Amino acid sequence: MDPPTSEAHRSSDDEAAGFFRAAPPLRGRDAVAASLAAFVARHHAGTGGGGGGGSPPAVAGVVCVTSGGTTVPLEQRCVRYIDNFSSGQRGAASTEYFLKAGYAVVFVHRRGSKQPYCRFLPEDSFLDLFELGEGSEIQVPESHTAVVKTAISSYRKAIDEGLLLKLPFTTIFEYLQLLQLVSTAMNCLERHGMFYFAAAVSDFYVPWESMAKHKIQSAGGPLNMQLNQVPKMLFILRNHWAPSAFCVSFKLETDPDILIQKAEAALRKYGMNVVVANELANYKDVVVMVTSSGKTTVSRRSKEDDLEEQLIGLLVKMHSDHAKQSNPDQET
Amino acid sequence: MDPPTSEAHRSSDDEAAGFFRAAPPLRGRDAVAASLAAFVARHHAGTGGGGGGGSPPAVAGVVCVTSGGTTVPLEQRCVRYIDNFSSGQRGAASTEYFLKAGYAVVFVHRRGSKQPYCRFLPEDSFLDLFELGEGSEIQVPESHTAVVKTAISSYRKAIDEGLLLKLPFTTIFEYLQLLQLVSTAMNCLERHGMFYFAAAVSDFYVPWESMAKHKIQSAGGPLNMQLNQVPKMLFILRNHWAPSAFCVSFKLETDPDILIQKAEAALRKYGMNVVVANELANYKDVVVMVTSSGKTTVSRRSKEDDLEEQLIGLLVKMHSDHAKQSNPDQET
Repeated sequence: MDPPTSEAHRSSDDEAAGFFRAAPPLRGRDAVAASLAAFVARHHAGTGGGGGGGSPPAVAGVVCVTSGGTTVPLEQRCVRYIDNFSSGQRGAASTEYFLKAGYAVVFVHRRGSKQPYCRFLPEDSFLDLFELGEGSEIQVPESHTAVVKTAISSYRKAIDEGLLLKLPFTTIFEYLQLLQLVSTAMNCLERHGMFYFAAAVSDFYVPWESMAKHKIQSAGGPLNMQLNQVPKMLFILRNHWAPSAFCVSFKLETDPDILIQKAEAALRKYGMNVVVANELANYKDVVVMVTSSGKTTVSRRSKEDDLEEQLIGLLVKMHSDHAKQSNPDQET
Repeated sequence: MDPPTSEAHRSSDDEAAGFFRAAPPLRGRDAVAASLAAFVARHHAGTGGGGGGGSPPAVAGVVCVTSGGTTVPLEQRCVRYIDNFSSGQRGAASTEYFLKAGYAVVFVHRRGSKQPYCRFLPEDSFLDLFELGEGSEIQVPESHTAVVKTAISSYRKAIDEGLLLKLPFTTIFEYLQLLQLVSTAMNCLERHGMFYFAAAVSDFYVPWESMAKHKIQSAGGPLNMQLNQVPKMLFILRNHWAPSAFCVSFKLETDPDILIQKAEAALRKYGMNVVVANELANYKDVVVMVTSSGKTTVSRRSKEDDLEEQLIGLLVKMHSDHAKQSNPDQET
């Protein structure tokens, strides 16, 4: 990774400070911070840190998975907002495979986006999955029994064993405040911590103080809007909040001609360990993992398989190598 | 209703024609039109029309309920879009009460918004509603059994008896094309047709041809956008597509000082029979029904009740009176 210049440092620090100062404060911030501290402390011991590291690790690591799109409100009492296309499918599927690989997961997700173990649900109406039996007992049709049972038991296990912490967001303001809380809480995990940035984060926003208080009226003709750039928080996270963590970000483009080049730029600029490049047209079928040592294409084996199974398998291996390295060197 | 001037007619017709000409064509348009034609024909006979009207009506009427928010894409290969705050709660609840009152319902809804009979589901994870029994059979906890059973049987009944036609949309382009298809198909029902516009429809949009083809890049500094006004299609619907129908629209504002005045203006301008005025802060608890003969406040009786139960009760009565009037007079 190119060493960031001190000017780049200073200007992005200033931008971030300005963003947080003007943002509406996160509701329930103290409760979130407390649940995060407890979650990380429990699993810190499990990764061999904390209580001396003598006992074998109970978890492979702790990963923060971000999932779904952030919104940008256009009015303070929000009726309209700019949103990013993202069902949360990638983040939900990846969370399942991280749990399967023995990780504890902080699932930072958009409210209402896809949830782990719920991906098989019918898009339209979940009631299509059920019927009433002769004694009017609730039944799942034979064809779906296995998948529903597996989902219920895997979900219960993750919750009951305290391996899954779910933190919801809607706006870009909530998301970035959560990200700061999670990453500073996870900093003590050092190289055992991992970030997997699958959320679709807004690039542009309307600063809170310059936002219309009430619903914008449509009688006044065309609407002109100016949006500011959101500060690049990955840079701050890498340099301040959790500098030793293993960081995986995603680059989504619609134009294949600029995709890899943009992914390589993000790798350098934000000091990511891996940038996963994907195209809107086929993001479920193929991705390219870009690292400082080269590119690896990952393709889905069949329509029945999840691409995330292979992707998480490769990342877990890379993270394990990263965790074995001594701490001062932050390269993978 | 004030008679619309011929200039107002001409300019909104031109705007609408321009909007439809430039919009990306609705996918599966022919299949939607065919299912609509069959649905309306079946229930046309049921309302006493069509096959002579000798037999007693099997349905009280046919209502088109629109629900959820429309999106405005900012790029042709859409990554970002402007959205409207709307869970679809109002439309889903109202659909249940229209079905209960004997109506056939065309439910024009935003993909992923709340569905009829699914409103009780936990926001977060539907798996919280289930557990595995000792023989690993799927169980619903005792506390939820009654509500889940009622939901499954009511939903099955509506689907099996062909009383509910669900048509999904995402963008403003899809929504307005669907609205034209539904209203022209329902025009033959004359005064037995009803429209209940609970969807949150975008006021501003980016014309398709002037839209960025690929994802807008964030490297170029602040983003400036100009959005055009969406043509007022309620005016066209009232004057061309389904002039005899009973029309109920909603007015949502965040500023209580302008709410009633805006609702009264909408009543006159678009020739609605009822405009339901609601505030973002308390839309679940209280609404004001504005008609040409006055205002009626409807309040929720308790936290356990749905405001929609009373609202639909009043509207069904008004629609019944409307249907009894002779056709040339379109006033209620």
